[in-house]
Amino acid sequence: MPEFLTLLPPDEAREKLLSHLPAPEPDSEPIDVASSLGRVTAEDILAPHPLPDFRRSTVDGFAVRAKDTYGASDSLPAYLVLAGEVPMGDSPKSALEPGECMTIHTGGMLPEGADAVVMLEYTQTVDHGAHNASRPADQGEKDNKNSVNSVGSVVEVEVFKSVAEGENVIAIGEDVNQGQVVQPKGTLVRPAEIGGLMALGITKLRVSKRVRVGLISSGDEVIPPGGSPRPGQVRDINSYTLGALVTKSGGEPVFYGIVGDSFGSLKETAAKALSECDVVVITAGSSASTRDMTADVIDQLGHPGVLVHGINTRPGKPTILGVCRGKAIIGLPGNPVSALVNGYLFLVPVIEKLLGAIPRPKATVQARLTVNLPSQAGREDWWPVRLTTEHTESTEKVIKNVSVDSVLSVVKYDAEPIFGKSNLIFTLAAADGLLRIPPDATGLSAGEMVEVVLL
Amino acid sequence: MPEFLTLLPPDEAREKLLSHLPAPEPDSEPIDVASSLGRVTAEDILAPHPLPDFRRSTVDGFAVRAKDTYGASDSLPAYLVLAGEVPMGDSPKSALEPGECMTIHTGGMLPEGADAVVMLEYTQTVDHGAHNASRPADQGEKDNKNSVNSVGSVVEVEVFKSVAEGENVIAIGEDVNQGQVVQPKGTLVRPAEIGGLMALGITKLRVSKRVRVGLISSGDEVIPPGGSPRPGQVRDINSYTLGALVTKSGGEPVFYGIVGDSFGSLKETAAKALSECDVVVITAGSSASTRDMTADVIDQLGHPGVLVHGINTRPGKPTILGVCRGKAIIGLPGNPVSALVNGYLFLVPVIEKLLGAIPRPKATVQARLTVNLPSQAGREDWWPVRLTTEHTESTEKVIKNVSVDSVLSVVKYDAEPIFGKSNLIFTLAAADGLLRIPPDATGLSAGEMVEVVLL
Repeated sequence: MPEFLTLLPPDEAREKLLSHLPAPEPDSEPIDVASSLGRVTAEDILAPHPLPDFRRSTVDGFAVRAKDTYGASDSLPAYLVLAGEVPMGDSPKSALEPGECMTIHTGGMLPEGADAVVMLEYTQTVDHGAHNASRPADQGEKDNKNSVNSVGSVVEVEVFKSVAEGENVIAIGEDVNQGQVVQPKGTLVRPAEIGGLMALGITKLRVSKRVRVGLISSGDEVIPPGGSPRPGQVRDINSYTLGALVTKSGGEPVFYGIVGDSFGSLKETAAKALSECDVVVITAGSSASTRDMTADVIDQLGHPGVLVHGINTRPGKPTILGVCRGKAIIGLPGNPVSALVNGYLFLVPVIEKLLGAIPRPKATVQARLTVNLPSQAGREDWWPVRLTTEHTESTEKVIKNVSVDSVLSVVKYDAEPIFGKSNLIFTLAAADGLLRIPPDATGLSAGEMVEVVLL
Repeated sequence: MPEFLTLLPPDEAREKLLSHLPAPEPDSEPIDVASSLGRVTAEDILAPHPLPDFRRSTVDGFAVRAKDTYGASDSLPAYLVLAGEVPMGDSPKSALEPGECMTIHTGGMLPEGADAVVMLEYTQTVDHGAHNASRPADQGEKDNKNSVNSVGSVVEVEVFKSVAEGENVIAIGEDVNQGQVVQPKGTLVRPAEIGGLMALGITKLRVSKRVRVGLISSGDEVIPPGGSPRPGQVRDINSYTLGALVTKSGGEPVFYGIVGDSFGSLKETAAKALSECDVVVITAGSSASTRDMTADVIDQLGHPGVLVHGINTRPGKPTILGVCRGKAIIGLPGNPVSALVNGYLFLVPVIEKLLGAIPRPKATVQARLTVNLPSQAGREDWWPVRLTTEHTESTEKVIKNVSVDSVLSVVKYDAEPIFGKSNLIFTLAAADGLLRIPPDATGLSAGEMVEVVLL
């Protein structure tokens, strides 16, 4: 029987699925911050102390009282007596008196009495014993650097530029204050987050446990990838593409293997997966009868069952979204391109919701479409595209005001759709990303700037 | 002494470093395809057989000889005798004779003699025994589906639309041909690549070994993150931010701990790291003297030594790039923001080159800058920015022709620079990405569309 499905727009379908899932209360586990890259925090993290917890210099120069430099200029420098050097990693030996300055390095602790730092570039050191100008770095070892040089004379520093109070200084708590929430629950841990936690001495944290996603492939024609298919058989692709997608998205794939086109065994396997996992994905055998079987199984596994059967998108029309006993069950088409694209569209958001992750911008690339792409109004299309640089296409072309940087993407790209029947897995493997044609468009024109979601 | 460095533009500096590294001959290792996500292939992968290796239907319907349908229409259907059903996962029991059709499911194997498939939607099944129209799916179990029904009459199929030869069929080798390079050496393995390999029965492959990156922090003021800093001390951030960046980029961080401001011990540790790793990164203590020490150490460790000392970028001016005995040594500023940003700019490209990875577009987001950002001409600036959606800012705003999709980035973003002194790690932890101000610009204007590289 032909499938006459009531197709929902993909955004609406996704919302329907997510809204039927209970508010996320992710299970959490403690781990070392050093190995938390890519995890999602399961608690608000508060600063146990201010950062920095002492006033630090941001430059190499001299710690001063700002008011001692007011009015200083090239022609009329301020003269300050050099009162020693702030050692790195230690507190200054003494406070700064009016009219004095102290050598300080980037990151050094300001002495009491100082409230600013003059950069080395705007100073000149004058040794009144030797009466010749010399710079502090030329004066030898650290322990020899103070206001009285080896022959007992006073060293003065000429300052050619005034500094304001607080200039070139990081105040206590300027990075974060004590008690401040530095990372709210749901933060994705990136290198910078790890750095922030380490700076505060936080070496352990609680993260959401990986979401367990049960993967079932169905279809009499499907065999494991290691096997040799007889005529009419194909290897299981979907367990592995979706498994990798789950891993990439912060989940843990649990493989339930391949089930033939039998309602009883599909239901049994799905029930087992539902009891052991947080999410279940069934990729249907490609025939209509097995697709219908998936919907029936979902309906029998628990309330409310199938929420959405049929989505107005290409590829992915026969996608089924359901919830049974508070857990998402997704029925994806057996076509490997459709299964993977719809995994990005529907499975990844479920995993992110269950992790309690704060939504973040997805990685995209702006590109110029190379050809006209027609589309059916009302349907959202996702096209695999290859991104090529104008640069490699034609080195003659110079793009005004845009430098071509080989490393970070300030390159201009062309988006070249990969044509091919929608079930050819290598159209996706050859693609850099997916181009979306929104439902309200009847197509996109060659030359249009489009946004490509990276795969 | 103030640093008067000859600053190179960052692109030029990077090119200089990469061009001094030998052509990559990455060590490789065999792994399971199922766990190869994020790795880089170390060999060209060829298709051992065509894909598909039999002619498959892309729809549910009837396998036909196309010429038997020519001229068929709603008012003048073609009549074909139903000659059975193609079983899923097996070859058809018989060849198709002229005037016949065979029930076939999506993914089913075309019988000999057939060259196209008519979609179910454009057909009607007529049982001449019972003289009432019925559809194949209503005829009960599979074994009962053939041209002669239970009372011995002939079943005919009315076809209302002609099909062309090859229509709704995937030809042998249409996805890939036998012997075709399906994944060249240097391919980053994503979910789709895993799927393609599985489809071909390739379950093992050789990938480049992870690049070993030795990380050394230096500075008398630096202590391990687990410790309690005394006044003037700070915790080591850089080993961990850079360690995470290395992991994320396909490398393996090797930690050499913290070395004080002593030339001898820095040189000794760097020499050890150089002999044990593929790349060495030294983050300098923040004072000028230790920064100079890094350059001297690199020069003493081998030819050619320091290639670049000083880069016209902010943050990151004092960055040092060197090569000793064919291996890259990078000296990064101690300032954690500068170290991490310059890690993205210079360390990641080195890792990618050593992995032999084919360059790929970097993840970016287009956004509208919220404020004017001045910059110094000739210098490339990287600003941490937060991305906010116009949507959350003002729900009144409707963006023409752009639907706001919460999952894949077709959202319009605002880029809001995070101000703060450049050495505050939480300015980076709060940022979604980095905004580049090119060297030839004297700033960017509020309202301008900019490209933000995601962190």
